[in-house]
Amino acid sequence: MSQDTAAKLPPEAAEELDAALREFIESRKLPLYHMMSFQLGWKDEIGERAQPGPPPRVHGSFTLASAHAVGGDYRRAIDYAISVELINGFWLIHTDIEDGNTERAGRPSVWWTWGPAQAINTGDGMHAMARLALFRLTEKGVEPHRVAAAIRGLDEATVRICEGEYLDIANQDRLLMATSAYLEMAESRVGALFGCAARFGALAAGDADDRLALSLEAFGTKVGTARQLASDYDTLWPQGNRDQVQQGRMIAKKKNLPVVHTFESADPATKRRLGEIYMQRVLDPKSLDEVAHLCEAAGGREAAAAAIHRLVEESQENLERSGLGQAGRSLLREEGRALVRPHS
Amino acid sequence: MSQDTAAKLPPEAAEELDAALREFIESRKLPLYHMMSFQLGWKDEIGERAQPGPPPRVHGSFTLASAHAVGGDYRRAIDYAISVELINGFWLIHTDIEDGNTERAGRPSVWWTWGPAQAINTGDGMHAMARLALFRLTEKGVEPHRVAAAIRGLDEATVRICEGEYLDIANQDRLLMATSAYLEMAESRVGALFGCAARFGALAAGDADDRLALSLEAFGTKVGTARQLASDYDTLWPQGNRDQVQQGRMIAKKKNLPVVHTFESADPATKRRLGEIYMQRVLDPKSLDEVAHLCEAAGGREAAAAAIHRLVEESQENLERSGLGQAGRSLLREEGRALVRPHS
Repeated sequence: MSQDTAAKLPPEAAEELDAALREFIESRKLPLYHMMSFQLGWKDEIGERAQPGPPPRVHGSFTLASAHAVGGDYRRAIDYAISVELINGFWLIHTDIEDGNTERAGRPSVWWTWGPAQAINTGDGMHAMARLALFRLTEKGVEPHRVAAAIRGLDEATVRICEGEYLDIANQDRLLMATSAYLEMAESRVGALFGCAARFGALAAGDADDRLALSLEAFGTKVGTARQLASDYDTLWPQGNRDQVQQGRMIAKKKNLPVVHTFESADPATKRRLGEIYMQRVLDPKSLDEVAHLCEAAGGREAAAAAIHRLVEESQENLERSGLGQAGRSLLREEGRALVRPHS
Repeated sequence: MSQDTAAKLPPEAAEELDAALREFIESRKLPLYHMMSFQLGWKDEIGERAQPGPPPRVHGSFTLASAHAVGGDYRRAIDYAISVELINGFWLIHTDIEDGNTERAGRPSVWWTWGPAQAINTGDGMHAMARLALFRLTEKGVEPHRVAAAIRGLDEATVRICEGEYLDIANQDRLLMATSAYLEMAESRVGALFGCAARFGALAAGDADDRLALSLEAFGTKVGTARQLASDYDTLWPQGNRDQVQQGRMIAKKKNLPVVHTFESADPATKRRLGEIYMQRVLDPKSLDEVAHLCEAAGGREAAAAAIHRLVEESQENLERSGLGQAGRSLLREEGRALVRPHS
């Protein structure tokens, strides 16, 4: 851990991000934006203050931390952070419909509250708004080629998310999936946006060179992928209650690393028993403990822990290669660890 | 009509656009892109040549015509045209889910073929791809500020589409909607993308001034809005069979101008009878003839025809104000008429 506390991101940064994100959305008055405000955690369905309040802005905060680590003013990264938060928000709205999640972060999901038609459309609007956030940079004097580079990065990450999401849905009803294919899928579906978020910190700092920007992108991508795997791990071996969204994904037979590992490499009897459980249209929640037991016996728990460890190592190798100074590397190392904790 | 046949867009332009759009999508190999290829009319669900083939690319062709009318090379507008086609395609995929359309252009819709989860995600991917098409311009030497201006225009149009779509869904189960609110909704939901398409022609031509670009945008927006109203008109008073998608919208109680006019201004007995029909959860298709009769008796047919006529006039006033030469204005006047025909 860093001895250089000056490198820490000021604690007010998260509040400044949330306030700027809120102002950007709530300055628009159509009820379409009220649904966005609901998703982002400020309002409940009738427009009152939401309980619980906004979730942590993990993607946007990662961008601010990255800008700060590079030596830039994190305030100049706020519009970048807003754009990654809006991409994440649009994707959560859509994935909740796709997965049939009735809840998100302890509150009803958007489609559960307003129906799938309005929810699809609200997500689409948030998707377009993500880019309009970046155009505010132009008004603040950022050169067009920098704005264009950021937008391109955002769209490339979004295409990767959709590619990953395609694979996630396509593999829902299949039993056999290679561990390597699963890892690629998790990297596209979840890692890519964290990679974009980290790279945006370097772009916001302005004079970052390509090596730094690409290293931070690779660092963020590995961190995001590790975070998904850690979430997979926690769903099977939770500390406390299972996360409802992740449990819903498992019941809908969305794959996770321990299950993929077990289907791939367990002995025939274990595979057959796991196959019987996965033969159901949806899993019985009561069967999750047996799934966890089968996976653990087949080495899936160990394999998942090893994969998380390896990804965290790889993330840090990219950080070492970045050319970033000691204090900046320390800050981002801790940020990366916090995104994967408490899972690993 | 123009005497200057040299102003006509070369007939091969449409094929060049279709080929470039296809190459852009089909150069990517994941089955995600196969679903896009299906939506765009090249492939059927098993990857064979689709029957019927691709629909006319009305938005993209409008961009090419606009570039040609301004005196630019339409080939330089092809990436712009691809981007508006992809926004239209993504929106059709999503609106087919939202409206529950089982068919689109004589073939099953994407969600009907692959389910809503894959369809939502395929639309999201196409949405992001629309902007990546514009980044090809950078590689062709177009300056970043021009690329950024195009992307911003695309996102502003997309936000307007989502605002219009929100109103379209929100008014589905309401009886009272002001004609003025309906017109604003149609302008956002359908007009805005035609406005963007026309403006893109001016942007592609490179040295267009703001007056020209904004006039063409206003021209296109009015044309697109008139096209939607003409489609409303045709749904109630079809020449031949009713369009299945538009009939589906009516059955789902999506509003159209003649019905809005009748609810707003008919005598109490007519309103009461129309209200009884609209009290059903979904309309009985057999009742559409009675709806048409009630609307016609209440002056809704006349009001719709007048509104279309007024929008076409307004579109042409914007064209006159554009500063465009005689031949260019003639070309676009005809393009605009063709988009509203055969309805008016």
